[in-house]
This record gives sequence, structure tokens and C-alpha cells, in this order.
Amino acid sequence: MENLLDGIEEVLLMGPGPSCVSDEVYAALSKKTLGHLDPYFVKIMDAIKGQLQALLQTENRLTIPLSGTGSAGMEALFVNLVEPGDNVLILKNGVFGMRMAEVATRLGAVVDVLEFEWGTPVDVDAVKKQLEVKEYGMLAVVHAETSTGVLNPVADIGKLVAASPCLYLVDAVTSLGGIEIAQDTWHIDALYSGTQKCLSCPPGLAPVSLSPAAVEKLMKRQTKVPNWYLDLSLIVNYWEGESRAYHHTAPINMLYGLYQALRLILDEGPEMVYQRHRECHEELVVGLGDLGLEMLVDKPYRLPMLNAVKVPQGVDEAGLRRRLLNDYKIEIGAGLGPLAGKIWRIGLMGHTARPDNVERFLRALRETL
Amino acid sequence: MENLLDGIEEVLLMGPGPSCVSDEVYAALSKKTLGHLDPYFVKIMDAIKGQLQALLQTENRLTIPLSGTGSAGMEALFVNLVEPGDNVLILKNGVFGMRMAEVATRLGAVVDVLEFEWGTPVDVDAVKKQLEVKEYGMLAVVHAETSTGVLNPVADIGKLVAASPCLYLVDAVTSLGGIEIAQDTWHIDALYSGTQKCLSCPPGLAPVSLSPAAVEKLMKRQTKVPNWYLDLSLIVNYWEGESRAYHHTAPINMLYGLYQALRLILDEGPEMVYQRHRECHEELVVGLGDLGLEMLVDKPYRLPMLNAVKVPQGVDEAGLRRRLLNDYKIEIGAGLGPLAGKIWRIGLMGHTARPDNVERFLRALRETL
Repeated sequence: MENLLDGIEEVLLMGPGPSCVSDEVYAALSKKTLGHLDPYFVKIMDAIKGQLQALLQTENRLTIPLSGTGSAGMEALFVNLVEPGDNVLILKNGVFGMRMAEVATRLGAVVDVLEFEWGTPVDVDAVKKQLEVKEYGMLAVVHAETSTGVLNPVADIGKLVAASPCLYLVDAVTSLGGIEIAQDTWHIDALYSGTQKCLSCPPGLAPVSLSPAAVEKLMKRQTKVPNWYLDLSLIVNYWEGESRAYHHTAPINMLYGLYQALRLILDEGPEMVYQRHRECHEELVVGLGDLGLEMLVDKPYRLPMLNAVKVPQGVDEAGLRRRLLNDYKIEIGAGLGPLAGKIWRIGLMGHTARPDNVERFLRALRETL
Repeated sequence: MENLLDGIEEVLLMGPGPSCVSDEVYAALSKKTLGHLDPYFVKIMDAIKGQLQALLQTENRLTIPLSGTGSAGMEALFVNLVEPGDNVLILKNGVFGMRMAEVATRLGAVVDVLEFEWGTPVDVDAVKKQLEVKEYGMLAVVHAETSTGVLNPVADIGKLVAASPCLYLVDAVTSLGGIEIAQDTWHIDALYSGTQKCLSCPPGLAPVSLSPAAVEKLMKRQTKVPNWYLDLSLIVNYWEGESRAYHHTAPINMLYGLYQALRLILDEGPEMVYQRHRECHEELVVGLGDLGLEMLVDKPYRLPMLNAVKVPQGVDEAGLRRRLLNDYKIEIGAGLGPLAGKIWRIGLMGHTARPDNVERFLRALRETL
């Protein structure tokens, strides 16, 4: 019988993730599997913690990748840091803010949502006012809103909660590895990300980092975490300490891939990587403008790695994506929720963010439009 | 700086998982990443569902791999199928039965535990009596208890609940791919497994399968599943139907690995694979006997893929494992919980279950003892 894997053709992944993967990371994925308690594997685990700390600019000890995709990171931080009845404020200007509200609500939190127009950033003044009105146990925001291409002012929001006991949670799924994150300086207590965006590793792991204040909240819970698989108070015993107590079998080969992906970023230098993202983004925006296409987001708030472009009137949104994929082996993303059919989402994430990819895409788009 | 991946040396994985991975599966892991909504990737997803159905001997439509390790499968089935206040009966004769009780308790279930001596199987008569005393919404048991090497009588227990509304949940993490599972014939309503045991794929995915009765329970829940990431009522929309609604980004490359691993089993023929496990197990038991070592479990209840061997008096349990790993590049497992220090756990799972591996291990053990 036909082996479907033989028919896989390489696609230039310019959607909202997964992004292109480098040959070094592919090679890492197929290194020989070690046991999850093998001392040599533990060395690799320790190295990954250090790499993540470096990239996040944090000294948080509890900085580890969880065994699930980015969405598992979201689930994990809420289920560990929220108890039923806790007051949580969610800043929402896209699908992923909406998802945070859904996750927190399911866990029994009392959730208030401050909503901002999709395609615009969170307004810091509005947040400030809300924090004066009510006391919250947690404030949560998405750094890079993948559904709209908007950069939220994570550092400025952090200043508002820096001196308060309110925990500050940030979704860094799309931002990590593409723009700077300074977790400690920005007063972020809890952060999660995913591997398949600017880290350019296939999907399957969720890096998280918790500040000492977040760890304290976790340790002082009244009730056990109602999710055994993602219980950080147990998982930490595997990732830290002498005993390395077995919790669940870590995804060994995925962790090889993450180690290699982080290595590539740190070797190139994070600043150089961020600059490469910016330059590719600028080249893309100019090219799109030349084709008469309009960006959804105003210039100061645009993400370099996720570009939301308005679909011109009369153009078949899905048809264009299909032609790009079939005829040019290029994937771009559709709009989500209220933006479905109205925008395309063009990703320039990690290994994808290279000038020749931008040029190849613009050529294909010109021929297709 | 040194790349730790360059220092990975192949280990013969004869512990309780992960098991050895074939070259074909390693190659599959590093196939080019496709988008999670790419029509070609969707074809691979559909093929995996069919492969799992074949191996489980089930017609359950909801038969899919979840994006986490085997423990995520456990978490997922309990959080989807149990609501606070539900009566759940757990049959416990090892660590993984204990873990099921912990997971169900955290979710607010009213949990009764029938306990059996570790190293012996569940007693069907005791289960029958308990089911006459009280009505349960769910009965849960581990098929192959990885902590003790005991095979539980899953088919016989299934007959007890076949005609009742009680859902029957089975942990098949270690059994799937190593011994027969006939999900439909055995009246199993909900089953989860992992990839890193007898499927011989690296850890990272949890195949699950739900009967129509389990799906009905899921759809008739009074409350939303308090775990967005593992909510099967949402995940199913990605794995089935025309729209393939995005839920979370699937672990693409891990799924390539699973596809290839299942292909190898189905190509060899499940019956042949099970026979290979049995034969290797028998060869191992004879060899251990020749060395004067004793099995923990009585003959009729022994698992072929997980062999619990008593540590002889005066032997340094951990030291022997360390020497096997350092000098022979062979990993075996330690005991868990009350069996820590008292047994070794020798895995013959999937690709590991080959006569030359058994011989290599016995030679090394003879020299080390």
C-alpha cells in the first residue's frame, strides 16, 4: 500500500504557524531516542532550561517546556494559577484573548473581559482605569495576537501591575523568537509559548516560565490543580532537583528539536534574529503595497512575524490561498472569527523570515492576483 | 559551544518505555512539516484514524491521537467523561491504577477504589460483587500494569458491564501493539494509549478511542469540559467532518512518526507482532531463570512486554542499572512506589522485542551480576 509520507512535498510555510523548519532541526528530531531518566537526557533538559531563560531574559528557575502544543501552555498556566472564584481580567483584541477568557471561565474563575477593536492594540489607559476599579488576582494579555497581527504593549501593561499582588500572565506563542521579550524587566509572572512559530521547531511543546510570585501562588493553592497532566507542582520535580521524579514520559525527540532550534537562535544572536524579522516584514509590506494591497493594522502596532492583509473586493479569498498552495507550494493563512474571509494572514516566522522567501511569495502573489 | 545532540549514543531501550525506534520511524519524524490544515496532511490524519481502528479492532469513529503523551490520554478521557459527583470505580493493582484514582478525584468524581495486591491481577469476582452493591457511571482498569508487569483480565471485566449503562474505560498505554486488544468485542467504551511503548514511536502522542456510548455521555454533559485543550467535543471538529475547524496546531511531525510506526505493525501483521513479543518474553524468562532470577508475577498473568524481576538479596539495584547503561548501553527500569528497590522492569516493547536484543541483554546481565 502507498506510503503517504513518500508523497509529502515541501511547502513554504507562510501562514500563522507552523513555520519552516531548518535542516538542523529536522536532523535533531531523528536523533536516537534516549530514556526520559537517562542522565545524558537530563543534561539536555538542563540545557534547554538555560536556553529558554536566555531567550526570555529571565532568571525564573521554573522555565521549562511542557508536553503539549502552545494551547497546552495556556491551559497549564490558567489551571495552575487560577482557583475557582479568583478574579481574572482578560484583555481581548482577537481570537487568542477570547480563548484565554474561555479557558479561565471553564476553570471557575470570575472573568472580566476588557475588549478592544480587533486589529487595534490594547489601550493601556483603559487597563489602568479598570485596575483602579477592581482588584484582580490575575491580568492576562496576548503579546502578539496571531489572529489580527497586532502587537500589544506588554511592557507598559506590566508597569501597571508591577507593584501589585496581581499576577501578570502573557501569551507569547507567536512573539517568542521573533521580537524581544524581557520577562523579568517587564514584570511578567507567567508566560507560555509554542514551538511552531518563531522558534521554527515543529508543533508539540509549550515553553513556560513562572516568576517566584507565580510559584508562590501555585504552592499556596487551597485545592489541588484539577489537571494532573499539567500540574506544575508535580512536573517541576522531574525538571528540577536531584531525584528527577518520574511524572510522565517527556517527548524526547521533540525536545531534541527544541534544543537545536533554540541553539540556532542563540548562535545567530536574538537581536540579529529580531532584525531579520523586521527587515523581512518591511520588505513584505512594501511589496504588498506595490500590489495595491492594504494592511489591516496601523503601522506602529504591526507584528513583523504575522501580517494581516485585507482581501481586496472581488477577490476569492480561499481560492487564492488554494492556488498559492497547489501551484506554488506556498501556504498562507485565512482570517479567524469575525475576520474570516476578510484578511489573509502572512507569516514571517523564524526560519521562514528570509528575504528570498518574501520575494518568492510576492512573485507568486503577483501572478495569482 | 558543544552541541549536546552530537554526543547522543544509541541505547538499547529495555525499560518501561520509551522503547527502541526503527529507522523508518526516525526518518518519518524528519519529513518536511506541513500545515495542520493542509489537505495532504488531512489525508495523513484520516489514514492514522484507520490504522488505529484496525489495531484496536474497533469501528468507533472517534479514534484519534491526542496531542500529549499517554498520561494526557488518561487526563483527557477522565476530564471528558466524568462530571463532578459521578460515581467512578477504579480497579487498582499498581501505580497506574493509583494515578487514575488521583486524576478522577481531582475532577470531582466520587471515587471508589478496589485494591488488589501489586503483582497479582484484578479479581473479576470481586469486581462483580462491587458492581452489585453500587451503581457506577464509570469502571476503569489498566490493561497492562507497567509498574508490576501484570496483565489484567480486561475482556472478562468487560462482560460484567456490557449490558449496563456504566462506561468501561481501559488504560492501554503499554498493551497497545504488544498484545491483542479487541475494543468492540470486549465492550470497552473509552481507551487511551501512548506512542512510546509497543508502538515504538517516540513519546508525545496519546491515541484514544470512544464508543458511541462514551460520545453520548460527552455530548450530554451538564457542564463544559473543564479543560479546553483536551475537550474532545472541540477536537473532534478538527479530526472529522468537512470544515476541519482549527482547535490547536497538531504535532505534525510526531503524527508522521505515528503513521509510520502503525504502518510497520500493520504490515508485519498484528498477530505476528504479538507472537514476536511472546517469544522474546519466553526467551527472556528462561534466560533469567538460568541466572537464578525470579519473576515477580505468576506465569499466567505475566505481560510479554514488561517483565518484573525480583532483585536478588545483596545486589545493588541501582548500581546494576547504572553499569548496564554505562558499560553496555542498555537501559532497564527501576521499581515504582512500594516496589522501588525490589524489582527491575525489563521492557520488550515493539521494536525492542527481538531475539538479538534479548540475547545481548542476557549476556550483559550475566557479566554484570
